[in-house]
Amino acid sequence: MRHILVVGIGSGNPEHMTIQAINALNSADVLFLPTKGAKKAELADIRRDIVARYVTNPESRTVDYAVPVRRTEGQSYMQGVDEWHAAIAEIHEAMFRTELGEHGTGAFLVWGDPMLYDSTIRILERVGRRGNVAFDYSVIPGITSVQALCASHRIPLNLVGQPVVITTGRRLADSFPDIVETAVVMLDGEQAFQRIEDPDAMIYWGAYLGTPDEIVISGRLSEVKEKILATRADARTRHGWIMDIYLLQKGTDFEE
Amino acid sequence: MRHILVVGIGSGNPEHMTIQAINALNSADVLFLPTKGAKKAELADIRRDIVARYVTNPESRTVDYAVPVRRTEGQSYMQGVDEWHAAIAEIHEAMFRTELGEHGTGAFLVWGDPMLYDSTIRILERVGRRGNVAFDYSVIPGITSVQALCASHRIPLNLVGQPVVITTGRRLADSFPDIVETAVVMLDGEQAFQRIEDPDAMIYWGAYLGTPDEIVISGRLSEVKEKILATRADARTRHGWIMDIYLLQKGTDFEE
Ligand SMILES: C[S@@+](CC[C@H](N)C(=O)[O-])C[C@H]1O[C@@H](n2cnc3c(N)ncnc32)[C@H](O)[C@@H]1O
Ligand SMILES: C[S@@+](CC[C@H](N)C(=O)[O-])C[C@H]1O[C@@H](n2cnc3c(N)ncnc32)[C@H](O)[C@@H]1O
Repeated sequence: MRHILVVGIGSGNPEHMTIQAINALNSADVLFLPTKGAKKAELADIRRDIVARYVTNPESRTVDYAVPVRRTEGQSYMQGVDEWHAAIAEIHEAMFRTELGEHGTGAFLVWGDPMLYDSTIRILERVGRRGNVAFDYSVIPGITSVQALCASHRIPLNLVGQPVVITTGRRLADSFPDIVETAVVMLDGEQAFQRIEDPDAMIYWGAYLGTPDEIVISGRLSEVKEKILATRADARTRHGWIMDIYLLQKGTDFEE
Repeated sequence: MRHILVVGIGSGNPEHMTIQAINALNSADVLFLPTKGAKKAELADIRRDIVARYVTNPESRTVDYAVPVRRTEGQSYMQGVDEWHAAIAEIHEAMFRTELGEHGTGAFLVWGDPMLYDSTIRILERVGRRGNVAFDYSVIPGITSVQALCASHRIPLNLVGQPVVITTGRRLADSFPDIVETAVVMLDGEQAFQRIEDPDAMIYWGAYLGTPDEIVISGRLSEVKEKILATRADARTRHGWIMDIYLLQKGTDFEE
């Protein structure tokens, strides 16, 4: 049976790669590399750098594939994602049939960790349900952007014994600051932190973490909010794209 | 100035080690290794295995230190933790002064990732505030048990676009199932999942993840609850200790 490896590659620093991930890439016959359009050429470069640094198996080859663009108009968010996954599943299925022998092994290099706001696992399950190609798969964890953020700021994620929510900009206000003391926000196109009115909240923000372009800013939300907005807008213009993440926290350790 | 490296070593599988963590350990003069009592000898063995496999710097040496036991009686949980951290901070301070030269580098091998339910960073901040020894520190992320759990079950952490809470047994009922669709529970001495009454909830449970003793069980909570309780009790008796973690989820992708 064909085997697919879903390999977390870390979030920007090639040294996030684990020994398990390096061994996985070296056990694959084919490495599938997404091409996401020139805008995010830097991300494709990081994947290529990882292959160049760590893949020593002379038998392996890379296969590029174009990822379709998600339609955002004329339908709900969920319908858009559902359709998009279906389109990618078709591409995966075709690649497994044409690029992998019946007992071949293929690997996907997934940004961060495959479990966190990533759809590779979901799409593989869909390919499986289609029933046109037999394969099995395994998942190898990788350093997430949440971890890169905390490491760069040298902060614990949680207050002592307290919970943490990981959420999106769209859903931030559902939980912070009323339900939990700590929220990590990803996939935030609207800078939802602007709308949090809490005089004591702290923010720890980071962009392009792990890369040479890494930027971090932290402080009381009320005091650094404007600086983050300006820095983010400026960096986004310069690069043509941005990936950023932040942690919001209120309260301190050892409060009961 | 002395430099301290707080190095995440992953959660049981020595191949969770990242290249960054390996390089960090090899840049240290001294590796500080906690001895936690015979009960958790397996955990000490994993740290030693990591040093043996990956540390090639002939100049580095290891220093064992005993971690004091946290008092749980006669005071609140927070007071107990606070006192315990104070005691460990004193030990760290003494080790930095006696074991590290003025420009020496020391490293702590932290289970999982230092940001997640771990106090090494907090304790270093405390040593810094005491002001008796000058040092700087950096943090290197590591694969957490949350990631090991999801990888072994081959599941995404989140439903499409939805938030996730990471919490403890004690606080589980505050958020799941009413506030969030997905909860990861760590540090649970009371098997809080038993008290969740939700006919649709799924559970993904794992113990000793990443080690040769790994056990995983998943299914509808109502159907596998008893099996998890029995398996956990049995494993705990056999090993003398247990570390386990689980994910609870209700609902499915693409529900709006
Ligand atoms: C589709 S999600 C993928 C997350 C990834 N699987 C992980 O484990 O971090 C993309 C989001 O992750 C965050 N992100 C990923 N890499 C990042 C980085 N290097 N710096 C800052 N944020 C990052 C941003 O919030 C971005 O919107
Ligand atoms: C003090 S916390 C440390 C967490 C660690 N820093 C991490 O990143 O996973 C200990 C808790 O982590 C979880 N844990 C750590 N390693 C584990 C493993 N290998 N298998 C199952 N659970 C684990 C358990 O819930 C345990 O109670």
